[in-house]
Amino acid sequence: MKNNQFAIEPVDRTTELKELRATHFIDDSIDQLDDPIAVWQELLHKTVLEAKSQTVFKQKLNNYLATPEMTLGDFLDSQQALTNDIFYRVAMQLLEFDVDIDFKLDNPIEAMKQIKLPIVGEPIKTKSDLLHAWYLLLCTHTKKGQTYLDKLAQAGYFVSFYATTTKPLFFNGKAQAVFDPHQLIRDVVYVEAPLDTDEDGKRDLLKVEILRAKQTADDYRAPVLYTASPYNQGINDEAGSAAMHNVDVPLEPKEPNQLTYADVHYQETPKKLPAKRKIAGEQQEADETFAMESPYTLNDYFLTRGFAVVYAAGIGTKDSDGIRDTGAVSETVSTIAVIEWLAGNRTAFTNKTDNIEIKASWSNGKIAMTGRSYLGTLAVAAATTGVDGLKTVVSEAAISSWYDYYRDGGLVAAPDTFQGEDMDVLATEVFSRMQKPGDYLKIKDFFDQVLQTMTKDQDRQTGNYSHYWDERNYVNNVKNIKADMIMVHGLNDWNVKPRNVGNLWNALRDAPITKKLILHQGQHIYVNGFRSLDFTDMMNLWFSHELFGLDNHAEDLLPDVLIQGNVQPETWTSYEDWQAPTDQKQVFNFEAKELVPETVPVRTAAASFSDHLDPEVFDFYKKHLNVWERDLLTTNHDTKGENQLRDNRLIFKTSRYDHDTYIDGCAQLKIRVAVNEPFGMLSFQLVDYGDAKRLTVSPTILAGKSLSGAYDWRRDNLREFTLQKEATPWKMITKGHINLQNRHNAYQVDELKANDFYDLTVDLQPTFYHLLAGHQLGLVVYATDFATTVRGNQELQYSLQINQCKITLPIK
Amino acid sequence: MKNNQFAIEPVDRTTELKELRATHFIDDSIDQLDDPIAVWQELLHKTVLEAKSQTVFKQKLNNYLATPEMTLGDFLDSQQALTNDIFYRVAMQLLEFDVDIDFKLDNPIEAMKQIKLPIVGEPIKTKSDLLHAWYLLLCTHTKKGQTYLDKLAQAGYFVSFYATTTKPLFFNGKAQAVFDPHQLIRDVVYVEAPLDTDEDGKRDLLKVEILRAKQTADDYRAPVLYTASPYNQGINDEAGSAAMHNVDVPLEPKEPNQLTYADVHYQETPKKLPAKRKIAGEQQEADETFAMESPYTLNDYFLTRGFAVVYAAGIGTKDSDGIRDTGAVSETVSTIAVIEWLAGNRTAFTNKTDNIEIKASWSNGKIAMTGRSYLGTLAVAAATTGVDGLKTVVSEAAISSWYDYYRDGGLVAAPDTFQGEDMDVLATEVFSRMQKPGDYLKIKDFFDQVLQTMTKDQDRQTGNYSHYWDERNYVNNVKNIKADMIMVHGLNDWNVKPRNVGNLWNALRDAPITKKLILHQGQHIYVNGFRSLDFTDMMNLWFSHELFGLDNHAEDLLPDVLIQGNVQPETWTSYEDWQAPTDQKQVFNFEAKELVPETVPVRTAAASFSDHLDPEVFDFYKKHLNVWERDLLTTNHDTKGENQLRDNRLIFKTSRYDHDTYIDGCAQLKIRVAVNEPFGMLSFQLVDYGDAKRLTVSPTILAGKSLSGAYDWRRDNLREFTLQKEATPWKMITKGHINLQNRHNAYQVDELKANDFYDLTVDLQPTFYHLLAGHQLGLVVYATDFATTVRGNQELQYSLQINQCKITLPIK
Repeated sequence: MKNNQFAIEPVDRTTELKELRATHFIDDSIDQLDDPIAVWQELLHKTVLEAKSQTVFKQKLNNYLATPEMTLGDFLDSQQALTNDIFYRVAMQLLEFDVDIDFKLDNPIEAMKQIKLPIVGEPIKTKSDLLHAWYLLLCTHTKKGQTYLDKLAQAGYFVSFYATTTKPLFFNGKAQAVFDPHQLIRDVVYVEAPLDTDEDGKRDLLKVEILRAKQTADDYRAPVLYTASPYNQGINDEAGSAAMHNVDVPLEPKEPNQLTYADVHYQETPKKLPAKRKIAGEQQEADETFAMESPYTLNDYFLTRGFAVVYAAGIGTKDSDGIRDTGAVSETVSTIAVIEWLAGNRTAFTNKTDNIEIKASWSNGKIAMTGRSYLGTLAVAAATTGVDGLKTVVSEAAISSWYDYYRDGGLVAAPDTFQGEDMDVLATEVFSRMQKPGDYLKIKDFFDQVLQTMTKDQDRQTGNYSHYWDERNYVNNVKNIKADMIMVHGLNDWNVKPRNVGNLWNALRDAPITKKLILHQGQHIYVNGFRSLDFTDMMNLWFSHELFGLDNHAEDLLPDVLIQGNVQPETWTSYEDWQAPTDQKQVFNFEAKELVPETVPVRTAAASFSDHLDPEVFDFYKKHLNVWERDLLTTNHDTKGENQLRDNRLIFKTSRYDHDTYIDGCAQLKIRVAVNEPFGMLSFQLVDYGDAKRLTVSPTILAGKSLSGAYDWRRDNLREFTLQKEATPWKMITKGHINLQNRHNAYQVDELKANDFYDLTVDLQPTFYHLLAGHQLGLVVYATDFATTVRGNQELQYSLQINQCKITLPIK
Repeated sequence: MKNNQFAIEPVDRTTELKELRATHFIDDSIDQLDDPIAVWQELLHKTVLEAKSQTVFKQKLNNYLATPEMTLGDFLDSQQALTNDIFYRVAMQLLEFDVDIDFKLDNPIEAMKQIKLPIVGEPIKTKSDLLHAWYLLLCTHTKKGQTYLDKLAQAGYFVSFYATTTKPLFFNGKAQAVFDPHQLIRDVVYVEAPLDTDEDGKRDLLKVEILRAKQTADDYRAPVLYTASPYNQGINDEAGSAAMHNVDVPLEPKEPNQLTYADVHYQETPKKLPAKRKIAGEQQEADETFAMESPYTLNDYFLTRGFAVVYAAGIGTKDSDGIRDTGAVSETVSTIAVIEWLAGNRTAFTNKTDNIEIKASWSNGKIAMTGRSYLGTLAVAAATTGVDGLKTVVSEAAISSWYDYYRDGGLVAAPDTFQGEDMDVLATEVFSRMQKPGDYLKIKDFFDQVLQTMTKDQDRQTGNYSHYWDERNYVNNVKNIKADMIMVHGLNDWNVKPRNVGNLWNALRDAPITKKLILHQGQHIYVNGFRSLDFTDMMNLWFSHELFGLDNHAEDLLPDVLIQGNVQPETWTSYEDWQAPTDQKQVFNFEAKELVPETVPVRTAAASFSDHLDPEVFDFYKKHLNVWERDLLTTNHDTKGENQLRDNRLIFKTSRYDHDTYIDGCAQLKIRVAVNEPFGMLSFQLVDYGDAKRLTVSPTILAGKSLSGAYDWRRDNLREFTLQKEATPWKMITKGHINLQNRHNAYQVDELKANDFYDLTVDLQPTFYHLLAGHQLGLVVYATDFATTVRGNQELQYSLQINQCKITLPIK
């Protein structure tokens, strides 16, 4: 394995000693000792938490080897001198590394270097040296993907702190688990949003679920991790499924227009709002509680560390008022109303009728937003308002523009595995007011009406960018962002496609905030609980810095851009930028079945492909998208049987690369194309061709329910991308789509005459890809994307003017 | 959905009232009321646990509809009369069923009948009627697969009971969550087993982890759920993988013998044991504790209900002594030593050196064993000793004879997905003493030696049944079983194959104990947390009966044989027996590509197939077992491309069945076969041919982390087999294998001359299968099973004398 820790704060020896004392590793018993071995033994004694007797402690010590032949218990009794070799041999065992598998008994230090575990360089000779080494050990990750100190926390180290905890305890720049998770206060309040989306003449009240340490009932003021999740009050699965759109419809010609951006630019029209409710009184204690929130495991980790956690589903969800219009400004206003309340700038009530105010007096007014996908999207949306109190956003797999979620290049383009979904379907799914019939009765008709408007406005007919989509493009408002931003995204996320984070990153490049980017090899997943990366520690360093104001240098310690490699598991590399404008370019011309260097003259004039399939084959592919994808990317001569897509796409390949290459950003295509009808579309996939054992698509569970970060607390799985057992012949790197009538942009519709050639430029989704020497880069050109576009199975024939086509790759 | 509840105990009204009072549903406030509506309102008040004010209570009531137009809050204020229709309309909402999806507002009772939710038939007119209906409602499952009372428990209903709990609280025959899970006592003790498997001259000490309610420190005596899991102290994944056997080896001729069962029958030879340790004192409190056990979620559920839970990994695991010889008598002795201690019949110590005894004084001496796979196997093994204190065993997917796990019909036959694994590999994997280098140092050489013996004794060369395997056949000792047995097995479990439970069930058919059987449609899985079956309630009823001695009629209420149907999701049917000797028989003769009724004369004399493949194809199948399975079962004329197995197996099919048929037990084959070498094997798969949407192979998660069964406690996923989205053309029902030299049985080796025909009889693995009218039953005859047998790719040619072959199906 490879350890990658970015959240270890280098501190001076004085600070180390102070923190060791604050965490009770140093105490009177240690003060009385001078011999480093005696100190070590005492530290071990404090940390072998299962031992309640001296005998059991000895028994446990003898489970470890101090030398290849002598147990730790025997060594400690032997009067022999401590060496770094001995300290780290034991350390490797404490850190749960396995002899002969992870390290050789005769050279633990060498293994630690290989695994990238931090070690002290100087000889461990004095008490002071020992304490220094112990401090670093506490910060070091075990084989099970957590710091040794967190492992101790799980074993109960901090339980004895609970009774006297009045404020957070920091160690190495990170808050520790000194708050009892089973004494949490669980409140529900109703925030009055400056909205009346259900048009009932009253401002919308939004249900907010709060978990906070019991110390907040006294003087402790907690920072807040706030997750806005439209899903967390329930999802209307069945209603959502029923609302799915049929995608087996023809692509149709669009009426040309001359729209400019000004024509589609969204500008807010102020709406008249009902007056605020008249406050009838104030109350300290909540009227309502809750038992089973829908938690995010990262938040759980911080609940025991002095952070409050707040969940709100927002307008149109169970127990809240309003109607949710997916991605609209009203949704964002709903999201930030909670922040405004947490920061003391908005009113909440104890219930929905009595108008009794309840203040977030327990909040320190510093808020971070967390969550993935729609949850992360709302966090990004909130950041773009510049709302006070929002100090930072950790957005994972977030949408930055809804057009980039459901549309692409003037086409309806579904997120992966959600063919037929759209804004209105999502709105139906999260309208959890539906689940409470007494409430639904009042709102049903109005909701149906809003839904109809949504269906119209999203405009599946043209797939064009419009006013509607411009309102839902958060990148427009990046200039308002005051919160520091951490963006996390999967390079293989074809649900929320990489363009979403790519555009956000580009827009933020010169913004006067701290911004960090983490790109991993996953699809649409969370990355806490991964063995190879101290993501949770990084977030702890970050939140301690941003929300507690701790001067722990998080802004310098966390890499600006951190990218997981796609070749070796557990490889993370820091970079200064992603898709930097200064990248070099590699250009290939198209040739028959080949991509050739720009300097090579092209001999082939044209190539063509059909988009039509035998109806039986067409039906089969619709039901077996994996087979479709396989046939699409498998070069004809590699296919043993019949490849039914043989004539339905063109594959161009480079020769084998003679050196490793890193693609960094958007591959750009210049294409000259004609089609036999006055409408058409093109799809592209950039593919790594070459037999290799690649990373697993989904993380492997290395140890189930092994991570809790606190004693007797919720557990999470330890996960990691591992190498697949078998080599695969190719891997799709990135893709793109375009409607041939949107050659300029997604709102201007261009004329398209049947059989005339047109030039167009397409940027594929941004990526970062390590292409190995010996592999070939391939470009697959096709039209209907069974997983993404409409599927009309029309009699379309596409022709490419090969000598006018090019691909440009940005190279790091 | 379909609800299937077997654990509702019908009780009289007096008992209902007593239990409603004991659980505080009836109290002074209810006593003062007479009007059923007022009583209902008060009960709702007690159960809307999130409401801490009257306003919030009203707000929540108005989330429900009492009539299609009137909310519950308004109804309660309206003075209108209560009707069953209104009560059950609200009940359906309380039970989280969705309007229009699960029921129509105008007829909730009809929907409840459809879903099989229990309802009171009589009009709900009086307070007494209302309390009766409420009692039944508390016992009824929600859409989320738990009783309404358990839903309330999750919401915190029983938290106020914690402080005064001194004994279990039963409701409707089942223990309730009145014990605080965060106040558990966690002890480690070391049981002295009557074994010295590591031959160090001292009896083996076994680490035992105990979780018990804090009330057991006072007078409360808890029954015990004991899970013996060789895995729970860690698994040596890497060492296990390295120890895997190569299966790409040729099948070889075996020397004929004339062995009888007497020759292979295992009889224990008494071994001299070291003396017991001299007890040096006694202690009440444990010397050692633990923080993170490896839990079984079913046990978690019972921890809050007054049951103690005990985990022990046994000999050869981390912190224990000894060496584990997979399946040996010593392993069983190790397993039951813990029971003996729990029942007061064996000594445990506080640690491994001081000889201070610690008694299980907190135990009521009544023990159940739980767990799946190897865990369930040890439970079965323990039961066959007749050990005192073991009242019942719930064995899930348990091995009943290790020969039936790693061997079949004189062949090495791997469990599904574990090609190359064997007894020695498993022993390596669970030898977690390896993970503590200080301890491992002492034992390594001896372990390696034992491993060598194991490798020899398991005898991969012949695959024959022997003394070695007879020791590991628990069915031999079924007559000793005193504990009541609940057996749970997947009909699609090709890891621990159905023969294991089949033989156990047959052996127990006339045993004077209570025995129950649950056969589900899963593979090798747990079935708690399924929506369609109240498995957890059934276990609660059962354990309350067996371990608390509650007279709740569990033995009558739980079906003797409960089988999940393979056609419709969520269908469970009770039967009197499985593979009953009285079943009818259906016999088919073989014909060219057909199975024809016995009465039809056969025209074809012979058919043959090769077992050899082009090496490239052979290698491909080894790496793509799914493709191999697909090609194996796909009839030649259905294949569009080339089917590489076209000549490597024979497929015989019946005509389409004209009525639904239930296969119940072992299909038996009579085959006359010749092979061109003096060795050979045959494999068989019985297949349902017919396009149908079948159940998912693995359960679908319906609601993640939604089940905890107690407030602020560990959560489990709600799961269910659902229909696959697409129809499939076939499904394998059952299979079997035989070495042609084991025509009589698995220990006697018969002569085999090349090219001579021999008769043999093969029982396929027992099954229960609902074959739909319109489908065909198919039998696939082949030799090398890529997923199971050795894979020599030898030049073997098999011939069947068709007119001497038959298949006999037991039909329910």
